Amino acid sequence: MDPASLVDELRAFVAERDWSQFHDPKNLAMLLASEAGELLAEYRWVPNDKADGFSHEPEARQRIADEIGDVGIALMLLCDRTGIDLQTAMRDKLVRNRDRYPVEHSKGRATRPVGATG
Amino acid sequence: MDPASLVDELRAFVAERDWSQFHDPKNLAMLLASEAGELLAEYRWVPNDKADGFSHEPEARQRIADEIGDVGIALMLLCDRTGIDLQTAMRDKLVRNRDRYPVEHSKGRATRPVGATG
Amino acid sequence: MDPASLVDELRAFVAERDWSQFHDPKNLAMLLASEAGELLAEYRWVPNDKADGFSHEPEARQRIADEIGDVGIALMLLCDRTGIDLQTAMRDKLVRNRDRYPVEHSKGRATRPVGATG
Amino acid sequence: MDPASLVDELRAFVAERDWSQFHDPKNLAMLLASEAGELLAEYRWVPNDKADGFSHEPEARQRIADEIGDVGIALMLLCDRTGIDLQTAMRDKLVRNRDRYPVEHSKGRATRPVGATG
Repeated sequence: MDPASLVDELRAFVAERDWSQFHDPKNLAMLLASEAGELLAEYRWVPNDKADGFSHEPEARQRIADEIGDVGIALMLLCDRTGIDLQTAMRDKLVRNRDRYPVEHSKGRATRPVGATG
Repeated sequence: MDPASLVDELRAFVAERDWSQFHDPKNLAMLLASEAGELLAEYRWVPNDKADGFSHEPEARQRIADEIGDVGIALMLLCDRTGIDLQTAMRDKLVRNRDRYPVEHSKGRATRPVGATG
Repeated sequence: MDPASLVDELRAFVAERDWSQFHDPKNLAMLLASEAGELLAEYRWVPNDKADGFSHEPEARQRIADEIGDVGIALMLLCDRTGIDLQTAMRDKLVRNRDRYPVEHSKGRATRPVGATG
Repeated sequence: MDPASLVDELRAFVAERDWSQFHDPKNLAMLLASEAGELLAEYRWVPNDKADGFSHEPEARQRIADEIGDVGIALMLLCDRTGIDLQTAMRDKLVRNRDRYPVEHSKGRATRPVGATG
């Protein structure tokens, strides 16, 4: 299924339930953050060096995929509501991140952005 | 730019900086949740009935698009690392949500899922 | 019960289960954020002007109190682990917020801090 | 400073700025989650086995204490607004957690609660 038809399906899902009244951007940002919190919960007791393996254990993987699906749906609903194009937003941010994190400054370092004031 | 080429660009961005060592799924879930928190911060003082208008004010819109870009990038990095296909995860979740939120039970109601115990 | 005895009870709860091995500050920050996400979920479909009333509906109030309890426990565990005194941290931040948000600049405005660069 | 006087100081801080209009429980839950996200960001690239040491590096410690202060303030504002007593909520939750995570079931295991349906 291509992304365009998924948007159409989401719109139909929302319209059938008359839920667009609840889906202003504020509420959708809350939905997105709470779903991201559920995804976070899956990994909270998993050590860093076990996190890749954990993501491939069948039961955990199903839950993680479910939470990723929820986050993706919330993000798509927010983009659709605000008219912000996700691909464009990601591409623009990637261009800016290349400036904020120059290779010579950032290589191999979990660094904060150049110019960050904290 | 199609999604596939964006993944390629993200992979190159990470590889040039030797950052894959930091990008295990646990850390990426943290990145995603912290970026979702920054998006949330944009809307925290905006009333529900102003949230659509706010999302179109030029300065706010730029910040919101930036945060959406960050969330999208974090989500794409996590999917790429775990090998979970985002479109499939969203589609599977939408199918399940149709069962969890039957139209007759959910129409016009900001309801909790059928069978939710939490 | 005073806060000191609650810390003691939490320490005993953790020690009996041999859970301090999981409770490094990174994991506790994840616990805190995921619990904050659950609290957020309670309010995501509630309009601003109904949020006070909603917080007093008996069933909702119980769930909200539960989530507040979870957030408080996570915060207390993190403070205990890092040796950061919560009261001092709050007081220091309040002092700084008085500078960041001068009354004449902030009165009646949901403003960003003075000097914020975004 | 005892907690009671800190609440008084927070109330004065809010009243001077006429900010109670923005501080309904929904918005305060968003504030809390976004501050928890900022705290999370401090630890996102820190490996589990470095997280205790990192929390004692002076610059990091100051930032972490600042974020803990923000989270504590948001939590205190929410409790004050809703009339939910934080100590009681934590104590009640601890009592329930003793049932949900029996020692014999939980010892040394980062377990999900007994009866969790996920």
